[in-house]
Amino acid sequence: MAETPRLTPAATIGILGGGQLGRMLALAAADLGLKTHVLCPEPDSPAFEVTRRRTVADYGDEAALDLFARDADVITYEFENVPSATVAFLRARRPVLPDEQALDIAQDRRKEKSFLEGLGIAVAPYRRIGQLADIEPAAAEIGLPAVLKTCRLGYDGKGQYVLREAGDARAAWAGVGEAASILEAFVPFAREISIIAARSADGRFTAYDPPENVHKEQILRRSQVPARISVALAEEAEAIARKVADALDYVGVLAIELFVVEEEGRARLIANEIAPRVHNSGHWTMDACRVSQFEQHIRAVAGWPLGPAARDRDAVMDNLIGEEVEGWPQLLREPDACLHLYGKARVRAGRKMGHVTRLSPLGSLAQANR
Amino acid sequence: MAETPRLTPAATIGILGGGQLGRMLALAAADLGLKTHVLCPEPDSPAFEVTRRRTVADYGDEAALDLFARDADVITYEFENVPSATVAFLRARRPVLPDEQALDIAQDRRKEKSFLEGLGIAVAPYRRIGQLADIEPAAAEIGLPAVLKTCRLGYDGKGQYVLREAGDARAAWAGVGEAASILEAFVPFAREISIIAARSADGRFTAYDPPENVHKEQILRRSQVPARISVALAEEAEAIARKVADALDYVGVLAIELFVVEEEGRARLIANEIAPRVHNSGHWTMDACRVSQFEQHIRAVAGWPLGPAARDRDAVMDNLIGEEVEGWPQLLREPDACLHLYGKARVRAGRKMGHVTRLSPLGSLAQANR
Repeated sequence: MAETPRLTPAATIGILGGGQLGRMLALAAADLGLKTHVLCPEPDSPAFEVTRRRTVADYGDEAALDLFARDADVITYEFENVPSATVAFLRARRPVLPDEQALDIAQDRRKEKSFLEGLGIAVAPYRRIGQLADIEPAAAEIGLPAVLKTCRLGYDGKGQYVLREAGDARAAWAGVGEAASILEAFVPFAREISIIAARSADGRFTAYDPPENVHKEQILRRSQVPARISVALAEEAEAIARKVADALDYVGVLAIELFVVEEEGRARLIANEIAPRVHNSGHWTMDACRVSQFEQHIRAVAGWPLGPAARDRDAVMDNLIGEEVEGWPQLLREPDACLHLYGKARVRAGRKMGHVTRLSPLGSLAQANR
Repeated sequence: MAETPRLTPAATIGILGGGQLGRMLALAAADLGLKTHVLCPEPDSPAFEVTRRRTVADYGDEAALDLFARDADVITYEFENVPSATVAFLRARRPVLPDEQALDIAQDRRKEKSFLEGLGIAVAPYRRIGQLADIEPAAAEIGLPAVLKTCRLGYDGKGQYVLREAGDARAAWAGVGEAASILEAFVPFAREISIIAARSADGRFTAYDPPENVHKEQILRRSQVPARISVALAEEAEAIARKVADALDYVGVLAIELFVVEEEGRARLIANEIAPRVHNSGHWTMDACRVSQFEQHIRAVAGWPLGPAARDRDAVMDNLIGEEVEGWPQLLREPDACLHLYGKARVRAGRKMGHVTRLSPLGSLAQANR
């Protein structure tokens, strides 16, 4: 069992990463009276604006990490690519939650796949690719099109290359920087969903209703709850999350992206990715649930009891990407829209600037989808 | 009409006062992407933990005020006793909202009474007291018991003295520090309510449902919505707030404490106090409304459109005062309790350490009260 301290409300939570997820974690912690200390290399990180203490430092800066660890009672993070040396350095000083096991798996697609398979959870067919020459035979086995994905440091579609024909192998290999990869079969999914769940140090588990997600150019655009899936499939998604969380003796919020595949009139789930952190597809919980994914994560890493994950509303969350944020004045006027902006100074194409969640009564979306 | 700038989401709101109200204002601003700068004399102010910039300075420190004003696009405050010299200094540099007219009235009970009377709003009978010798004749006119209240700097019952018999006059006069006061008749109220409303610079107005409030030793203990009053009386409360807000060309959230008096089977309202700010009796709006009083205030002073004040739930808000905060672990376990802690390091008797709002379906409290 992870050694999770039980924090008092005067305690400090260290957060690695200062983006919007770190910011929303810090805001959730503040609402519970907890202090936060954010460490991030970028001086204008959004989370720096809402935290008691901030450290602008590289994740490899041991002097800074040491001071950061001394100031924190527990350390968590907003992104799964925290260098393992950073985690090792910090966990010698303070508990880091979720722990290194979850990070290790989430940082390497091969390990992630094996881990999921080991739990009997379906994943897309794949082959390991260590060199250019591996690609063609792998493609022949799993079929094309397929996606070449680097094992490490993938995020929002970076480090991915779509292979449409065998002749693309060289370009694909260059495209992923000739790094250890997997070639993954295209999953002919009917829809994408995710499951956002939480587990506490004493093994309690709770999950939010799975949202249905829409990606464009590999960036999440929209999440809506309920997803257009059966109750049985939603329960299966929750069972997958519980299996993963229990196997990792996980503490905190985790998200698993899942494909819904329909075959012969039967729907089944294929696990795509595990994110050992709060997740963009869970932002609607801020407005549609009593306890958001951010508060839930803070409760878990603080060693506090988890809150209810029940949903009070149907919800559609849209990311505001790049210039879309300029629609904020209109969004403020919509009575059912809950606007959240991240305080980022510069608008850049593809940059997540905020999100808006539109709420409607329970059951209304299912009605509209009929 | 007040000159209210329309802020962009990258703008900075200056907040005078760093207590829990300033903290919750800063958190609400952050959720909308706005930056905050908090100025407060106490170095360990709760709001300092959640703001981008903090200035520890006296309200009379002009050098500090100047830098503070330069950094802010608009300035607001969490308490009504901001010195008028401070406001004059700041408003020469940046808009201060709500403006000095509201502060002027809220800072002086005599002005407040005259202002309310001028609008045809009922107030408790009172007499002005400038010297000890005024007390006895005033008491003879309005009857005893009565309350001697200083005109200025009253808060949470400070600067008040209950006069039970004429012989108490000398002690009462000493009790209020021989300061200009009013002697106010005891209002035999059936209950206390408040109305929390917002007005934007373009004259739009919205009000939350009036909560019913319970004070103990002059500190608010509980607010619950709905109050046990008729729809007509709730509308009267809203009309009072609208009259006050319009008369002041008010921009921001304001609260008015009201007594409900029952005479010959008819209920009527008597205005007690105007608070030109967010108010403790409105904390339940954080959990029971889509737009809280804090977000509403930020929207108003930013020159943004007001949001809906509709209520989704019945709610009972209890302040956690002094050692009551030690019940936080139990409160975290209650599924319908929304816990908010203020991050105050030291527990002191009478100190507001946090609050908890218990939610229930619309209509359930009225049912229970039957």
